[in-house]
Amino acid sequence: MPGYKAPIEDTLFLLRDVLGYERLGNLAGFAEAPLDVVEAILGEAAKLAEEVFQPLNRIGDLEGCTRHQDGRVTTPKGFKPAYDAFRQGGWIGLSAPAAYGGQGLPMTLTSVLGEYLSAANLALSMYPGLTQGAIAAILAHGSDEQKSTFLPKMIAGEWSGTMNLTEPQCGTDLGLIKTRAAPNEDGSYAITGTKIFISSGEHDLTENIIHLVLARIEGAPQGTKGISLFIVPKRRVKEDGSLGEPNGVSCGSIEHKMGIHGNATCVMNYDGAIGFLVGEANRGLNAMFVMMNEARLAVGVQGLAQSEAAYQNAAAYAKERLQGRALSGPKQPTKPADPIIVHPDIRRLLMSMRAFNEGARALVLWTAMKADVSHRSDNDADRRAALDHLGLMTPIVKGVLTDTGFENTVKAQQVFGGHGYIAEWGMEQFVRDARIAMLYEGANGIQAMDLVGRKLGKDGGRAALAFFNEVTSFIKESGADESLAGFVKPVERALGHLQQATMWFMQNALARPDHAGAGATDYMHMFGLVALAYMWARIVKAAQTKLTAGDDGETARMEGKIATARFFMQRMLPETGAQLARITSGADSVMALAAEAF
Amino acid sequence: MPGYKAPIEDTLFLLRDVLGYERLGNLAGFAEAPLDVVEAILGEAAKLAEEVFQPLNRIGDLEGCTRHQDGRVTTPKGFKPAYDAFRQGGWIGLSAPAAYGGQGLPMTLTSVLGEYLSAANLALSMYPGLTQGAIAAILAHGSDEQKSTFLPKMIAGEWSGTMNLTEPQCGTDLGLIKTRAAPNEDGSYAITGTKIFISSGEHDLTENIIHLVLARIEGAPQGTKGISLFIVPKRRVKEDGSLGEPNGVSCGSIEHKMGIHGNATCVMNYDGAIGFLVGEANRGLNAMFVMMNEARLAVGVQGLAQSEAAYQNAAAYAKERLQGRALSGPKQPTKPADPIIVHPDIRRLLMSMRAFNEGARALVLWTAMKADVSHRSDNDADRRAALDHLGLMTPIVKGVLTDTGFENTVKAQQVFGGHGYIAEWGMEQFVRDARIAMLYEGANGIQAMDLVGRKLGKDGGRAALAFFNEVTSFIKESGADESLAGFVKPVERALGHLQQATMWFMQNALARPDHAGAGATDYMHMFGLVALAYMWARIVKAAQTKLTAGDDGETARMEGKIATARFFMQRMLPETGAQLARITSGADSVMALAAEAF
Repeated sequence: MPGYKAPIEDTLFLLRDVLGYERLGNLAGFAEAPLDVVEAILGEAAKLAEEVFQPLNRIGDLEGCTRHQDGRVTTPKGFKPAYDAFRQGGWIGLSAPAAYGGQGLPMTLTSVLGEYLSAANLALSMYPGLTQGAIAAILAHGSDEQKSTFLPKMIAGEWSGTMNLTEPQCGTDLGLIKTRAAPNEDGSYAITGTKIFISSGEHDLTENIIHLVLARIEGAPQGTKGISLFIVPKRRVKEDGSLGEPNGVSCGSIEHKMGIHGNATCVMNYDGAIGFLVGEANRGLNAMFVMMNEARLAVGVQGLAQSEAAYQNAAAYAKERLQGRALSGPKQPTKPADPIIVHPDIRRLLMSMRAFNEGARALVLWTAMKADVSHRSDNDADRRAALDHLGLMTPIVKGVLTDTGFENTVKAQQVFGGHGYIAEWGMEQFVRDARIAMLYEGANGIQAMDLVGRKLGKDGGRAALAFFNEVTSFIKESGADESLAGFVKPVERALGHLQQATMWFMQNALARPDHAGAGATDYMHMFGLVALAYMWARIVKAAQTKLTAGDDGETARMEGKIATARFFMQRMLPETGAQLARITSGADSVMALAAEAF
Repeated sequence: MPGYKAPIEDTLFLLRDVLGYERLGNLAGFAEAPLDVVEAILGEAAKLAEEVFQPLNRIGDLEGCTRHQDGRVTTPKGFKPAYDAFRQGGWIGLSAPAAYGGQGLPMTLTSVLGEYLSAANLALSMYPGLTQGAIAAILAHGSDEQKSTFLPKMIAGEWSGTMNLTEPQCGTDLGLIKTRAAPNEDGSYAITGTKIFISSGEHDLTENIIHLVLARIEGAPQGTKGISLFIVPKRRVKEDGSLGEPNGVSCGSIEHKMGIHGNATCVMNYDGAIGFLVGEANRGLNAMFVMMNEARLAVGVQGLAQSEAAYQNAAAYAKERLQGRALSGPKQPTKPADPIIVHPDIRRLLMSMRAFNEGARALVLWTAMKADVSHRSDNDADRRAALDHLGLMTPIVKGVLTDTGFENTVKAQQVFGGHGYIAEWGMEQFVRDARIAMLYEGANGIQAMDLVGRKLGKDGGRAALAFFNEVTSFIKESGADESLAGFVKPVERALGHLQQATMWFMQNALARPDHAGAGATDYMHMFGLVALAYMWARIVKAAQTKLTAGDDGETARMEGKIATARFFMQRMLPETGAQLARITSGADSVMALAAEAF
């Protein structure tokens, strides 16, 4: 049975020594969460992940969710008490405003919580995860009445939330939405239509479910400009806040999926359900984007989380499984064979997972801290710069961390040899579960187009230029430090590739947008590699500082960081050269064949 | 529901126009199978794959195999009649000697058959697939009596075969085998032990199952030099060839696996079962290698096959699913959206699968033809060269085609967006089924070590040098042909990378074998890319010839070949640069951490 241990030490090292968490002490919520408090909070989060969520991971996979004839859905055995423990701990509102019962702590902590919980049990973590997205949308666009009606219950975890976008005929292209909203006399709307792929759409964990639904008000313009966002509670809410009658919404069926069996992915039928407009009419996509951006970062974290959990189990197996002898001579001559961790090809697999995980964790925390700055700073320039960073990094975190996270679950499975294919070992579940993250909240090709087609050129390329400048400054500052040379030079070379690719798009994609489309995925991954490389260079700098300071207890771990950084630079970063070649080959060979030839 | 159409046209084009099948007309079996006969045979094989095997693919996945309390195993509904149709068609003995009831046709045809059947239904195809491996081992190492007792029934498909290598404590490291063989007075042995992961180990498709079992004769030397190979029939065979009593072998359980649910992967318990030594005592690994090499090529073909089947369904979906508009302007303005095949990122996915599949098919056929030459030529030098090629290419075909084949099933699933995650669409089954091929018959890291540690240096590097020389000659011959320049130059560059990497191993790995281990997987993939690039260059040459000849009916298809080759050269081959950088960075960063640090 697989295990999981939350990487608290690494999280704290990154926050404290690499990313300067304490420099944000003047922001709201940060004063209440200095690093010693963070450590205590993460300790509790780790317990919940390791002791409550993780033991249910395989049960959830085996048992799945059950839809009863009356439309009720039962979650796997143990999910309800685990959810209750989570809810009662006040975790859902960790970063939510105190005005609605939240704790107002940094969103950065919610992001760490997300990593630990989704590593331990992705399917279970998705129930409160969707609620957090729904809270964010209501906070940003709901009326005061909507906020006071729904937020306290949602933040307390008594009610949960969902996002309802997809329909059978439309996923990516939301302009094709058919679900319709007919105005009622009291200002509410009657919502009618079918939504598919609704995660946590129906379940037995909470007494009410607050669906956020995209629909088209009768007579609205065609396409994406005629879409509005509605709150549709599963059960109506009386004036006194207590629960009323069922609303006209029900789960028609549960999807049979490759993985995340413990989460109920529902077909939701709306049959004149009463809904309340959120924000302005026909501006629903705008409102939904708040949820989507938050959700996309959270999904990127899921990619990292599954990779970390899979890695931990692969590393443990590699140290135990005896098979063959080291090429450099027996390492455990008294045993019938050496543990397979002596084999360079096994090391290669483990190191590539590790180098990704630790770099990606830094990238996530860096971006989460920017999210806090964007919400909580009173300095306009800081907020703007943080928002720029957030917009730029959201598709990269989502696309790169889920693609590579999935690949890593496959690598971890490979370490187990044939046993990796056997369900009882739990490694194939990581592969099946991690696979969803490349697809939902915008398939990764959409992330790549969001980056290349929208984020890159926005405001004259301000966000990308700011990133390039920051990395360039780091390179200049660190250039004189010889102990960093082996790390700074590869970053400089990779950044050069990224800038060349960016320039190539600027010169070619305007005349032929297909050039951007054909290179988008490679560009997204190249950007991700450069961002990870920058994180690793900063990690090395911090590690060198600690080593120089001579903190003996940390020596081995800091030397490990430096060794892992070297692996990243030598073995993972060179990919940018091939990516550049592909990008600058353009769309010709990609688009040459007629559609009928396929 | 997914479909499948056997790519007969492509197979024939490769055999006829690219690989010179007809030049082998003087070999045994080839005279009976000129290309028009091949076409007719493949037409029948395609029917079987498309109409009999493929419709059972999802049923097999859903239903799986059932073990009854008495140890009997029932295969999924429909498997037995499908197997009977296959058996009655004489397909198992397509390439087996006429002396034992086979048809004696080229093994190349069996390889094509393997592609079509394992694309249509991998789990079902594995039952006769394992039989073919067992036939090969008995043919190569069995006594005349063993041959006449077992081969006719196996070739007729009335009895099936298995390979029993793995035990709980050993997979890769067969020196750890514990299953023991005690001599009986009549010259037979009593076999006792437990084998795991035995594909097709027990089932209801045949009246007898001929297990080939590795075991240790009492008193044999330790390690791999004390292992012998035995025939252990499920039911004893009487002197007159009829079935006798059950032997002491039974299925203890069926594994719960990620995929290939329709194939019974068994724990097999041997309890004093009567076994017959195959070949010499303590030379069992040697005998088993015949089976393994054959099986490894067949597994490589499975990787291609799953990739092809997944690709076909992704291409069909991409032409039907309407979502978004082309970046270059609407392509179907009267419809609510364009088909997603207009999007460059979707094209990129489709083209990369296609460029792999068609190149890999050429590589497989080229290698299969060498296998025929190695068995059937009466020219010593030709046989030796063919055997060299076969030994060199076996780990590459197995490792690269299954790694990339799996990746392609993931890409094909991605084309479906969220629907790719839903079981009913069938795309996630391709991913789960294809995954096994990277693990069984030697996990792919073992293939890489076989290539780098054994095949590369064998006989002074004769096999690799012959390959390098052949590609170099092709480059020289074609250099003057301007229409080939865009294809020959990339091959030349990639071959240069491969030769540099080879040289690097020669200079560094002797002093430190870990340098070879750390670069082995990259080297295997690099070698694969160069081999595929060489295939593509030859395909382009053949296509140009046909275009010049002006066969109008073929124009579009030949232009498609050239366009796909260009995609391969521009978008897939550049990876060799990154691979070279990783290989020549050596083992230092891979092995730097202490095992305890993981």
